Amino acid sequence: MPGARDLKICVIGAGSMSFMANLVRDLAVTGGLHGATLALMDVDPERLKMGYSLAKRYFEAVKADYRLEATMDRREAIRDADFVINLAFAIGYSNLGAMIEAAERHGYYRGLDATEWNMVNTYPTFTAYKQYVVALGIAEDMLELAPDAWLIQVSNPVFEISTLLYRRTRGKLKIIGYCHGAVGGVELLARRALGLDPRRVEFQVAGFNHVVFLTRFRYDGEDAYHLIDEWVEKRFEEFWRGTVLGPWEETLSRAAVDMYRLYGLYPVGDTARSGTWKYHRDLRTKQYWYGPLGGVDSEIGWAIRLLLNRRAMERLRRLAFDPNVDILRELPPTKSGERIVDIIDSIANRVERRLILNIPNKGALSRVPPDVFVEVPARISGEKITPEQVEPLPSRLYSYVLYPRLERLEWALEAFEAGSRELLVDILMRDPRTRSYEQAREAVEAVLNLPFNEDMRRHYR
Amino acid sequence: MPGARDLKICVIGAGSMSFMANLVRDLAVTGGLHGATLALMDVDPERLKMGYSLAKRYFEAVKADYRLEATMDRREAIRDADFVINLAFAIGYSNLGAMIEAAERHGYYRGLDATEWNMVNTYPTFTAYKQYVVALGIAEDMLELAPDAWLIQVSNPVFEISTLLYRRTRGKLKIIGYCHGAVGGVELLARRALGLDPRRVEFQVAGFNHVVFLTRFRYDGEDAYHLIDEWVEKRFEEFWRGTVLGPWEETLSRAAVDMYRLYGLYPVGDTARSGTWKYHRDLRTKQYWYGPLGGVDSEIGWAIRLLLNRRAMERLRRLAFDPNVDILRELPPTKSGERIVDIIDSIANRVERRLILNIPNKGALSRVPPDVFVEVPARISGEKITPEQVEPLPSRLYSYVLYPRLERLEWALEAFEAGSRELLVDILMRDPRTRSYEQAREAVEAVLNLPFNEDMRRHYR
Repeated sequence: MPGARDLKICVIGAGSMSFMANLVRDLAVTGGLHGATLALMDVDPERLKMGYSLAKRYFEAVKADYRLEATMDRREAIRDADFVINLAFAIGYSNLGAMIEAAERHGYYRGLDATEWNMVNTYPTFTAYKQYVVALGIAEDMLELAPDAWLIQVSNPVFEISTLLYRRTRGKLKIIGYCHGAVGGVELLARRALGLDPRRVEFQVAGFNHVVFLTRFRYDGEDAYHLIDEWVEKRFEEFWRGTVLGPWEETLSRAAVDMYRLYGLYPVGDTARSGTWKYHRDLRTKQYWYGPLGGVDSEIGWAIRLLLNRRAMERLRRLAFDPNVDILRELPPTKSGERIVDIIDSIANRVERRLILNIPNKGALSRVPPDVFVEVPARISGEKITPEQVEPLPSRLYSYVLYPRLERLEWALEAFEAGSRELLVDILMRDPRTRSYEQAREAVEAVLNLPFNEDMRRHYR
Repeated sequence: MPGARDLKICVIGAGSMSFMANLVRDLAVTGGLHGATLALMDVDPERLKMGYSLAKRYFEAVKADYRLEATMDRREAIRDADFVINLAFAIGYSNLGAMIEAAERHGYYRGLDATEWNMVNTYPTFTAYKQYVVALGIAEDMLELAPDAWLIQVSNPVFEISTLLYRRTRGKLKIIGYCHGAVGGVELLARRALGLDPRRVEFQVAGFNHVVFLTRFRYDGEDAYHLIDEWVEKRFEEFWRGTVLGPWEETLSRAAVDMYRLYGLYPVGDTARSGTWKYHRDLRTKQYWYGPLGGVDSEIGWAIRLLLNRRAMERLRRLAFDPNVDILRELPPTKSGERIVDIIDSIANRVERRLILNIPNKGALSRVPPDVFVEVPARISGEKITPEQVEPLPSRLYSYVLYPRLERLEWALEAFEAGSRELLVDILMRDPRTRSYEQAREAVEAVLNLPFNEDMRRHYR
């Protein structure tokens, strides 16, 4: 790994409203990376300009020494990079919304991709088509132009994309999938539900991205899972009556508690957004399990999310361009809580850290194939990533949760690799919302016929 | 292995209408086993008497030298046995029918157990409860009283029972699962569809019991899969218009052809009875895919099956007791086509044979765990069973067919081992027929509350 002066960090999707502000903030306060080149790339010139201006303005304000580049040419951005961060969300929220609407007209509530153990708003099969194409393009460019670089895959679906790229490149590409959901979920559980100080909590989680369970929970070094049990048994009902859960707070939902009772470990982060159709059949059902919003993936949650997106974009624009903004007050030069820059720092500067990462399984979860990406704590220092010995999972967690989720990955990737429209329909033949073959076929056609899906229509013959 | 004079073959469920006549016939013509003891056991004294009388009468008629024993004491039958053949179908057709009716009253067409990739009339979860208990009892008795004996598991669900026993005994019990479906299916395809002489066909099949696909098809030593393609493409529609498929002829159904097109290999035997709900949603759908009967698992097929069962019982009774029956004309002393006795002969007398068997995977199917039973051709001679190197399966066959089927085994066994009623309900939460949690819960209660299911109700708390 070169010294920071020779380091190149490439960001694909540098107009990302979810991650850019925190990324520049963390880069600014990570002295060990100062001097590096930050190559920003986006297909949208407006967004690229915004990401660039934000970074430039912030680095100047905090006197962080980065060489900034901006380009719409992906190959140029990737060439000779040491790290490639993929933040791209190619479908976009507006088109995703149109896909959900088209599917709902054919009887598929919340879109064709909403499925058992993956009800989250970014989906494995249909929505992800453009994500797969973009990520495969990045992987191809990396193998050619930056073969030793690490890909940090942040945009969703992290589980499918990481596994797809790993298989396609036969393990040659160095890939880490990153998600902040599990850590956030455990903190929420500790603080809001149990009234604990998250800094004194030590925990271990394991599973797949968005399907992670708490395998260890300690407070001041002592096993504290019994505090969760106590909350669930004695205090949850009272908590629930007085609470309106916000988006991404589903770790504290009635659905989470139900999953814990059924499957034996507490689900954290985005996990409780999923589950079977038990929790998702319609808005009323969602509201029973997730409170008045019906969770972030309901139609109400979706509308709120669009509003939050608009605000995030407005904020980013202000931070990038508004001369009246005091950027250091809006974005104080302290760590954001995201760990993307920590991953880079640990690899580039051999700063050992324990992080929750998505990495190839290779035995971390005993009953999962080695070429599947799992989300587990790992020690990372230099090029060496060592997954932690994970506590054994209850066997029902494999059969009722992890296998069904993995199966949906396999369906999605198989259909994608085969380019088979009939397999897309066959996925829906296994969907509880399907009433007939004709319905499934027509719904697939409707989504493929949306004007922005022409590439997808040509791919799935 | 002792000489035939010291050999003991035990039959559990010796009143079986499906297998007993062929079993005594094959024993009679297998000289290498003459002199052995045949210990018949059944919980029903009438049926036991019938099985015993049939065997006695037939062995006398053909002058086959077997020492016959009959007992209602399972332990006595198993003690010192070299082979235990399990034919027991503990639930019985009448109670199975009552379970299907109770489930249909709650919106579960063809019973709670009818499920993707296992629509066949004997089911993994609910129906199989008594089967699991009986088989586990046999396994326990064998480990204590006949630890070197082979269990030949014939009664269904072969897939679940074999895998359950193998896991519970940590591989200590020697188990072979046996099913005649795949061989019969290939013969039907060769003869009726392709007009070939089955004796000149050489084939290989692979998968799980009742989910097996033709991985190799040769005629006179030459690859002949193209003959299937030609039939499917050019002659199937004409064939289909003129055909009324009988029960167990689903290998030639429109559903089989559709599965072949979708998944890449031709499904044989009981395989085409299953698939997704695409083929099974209601009687009309079943009739479209399986012809006027709607397949053997439709309500029509079920009625026909009850009729055939009655006739089989009547025939067995006549063969056993009617002095006017010319038993050698009704049951000529030639091989029946079943291979149970061949398995025993191959092991006991080291007569090498290639048979389609259900055995622990151990690498035969590359992407299936080692402790799962697969149905593949194997060389068997003495105690050595060597699975054939199986042609690689299309990867979509794993993701769309074998994994979903395996998943349902895991759900069933997990719920059984945990004795968890909530997991039974959770299985139904993944079922396309479920409209609400309440419906699923009430349906489970209704089936558990049937008077003959009291043991099951106590088990699933």
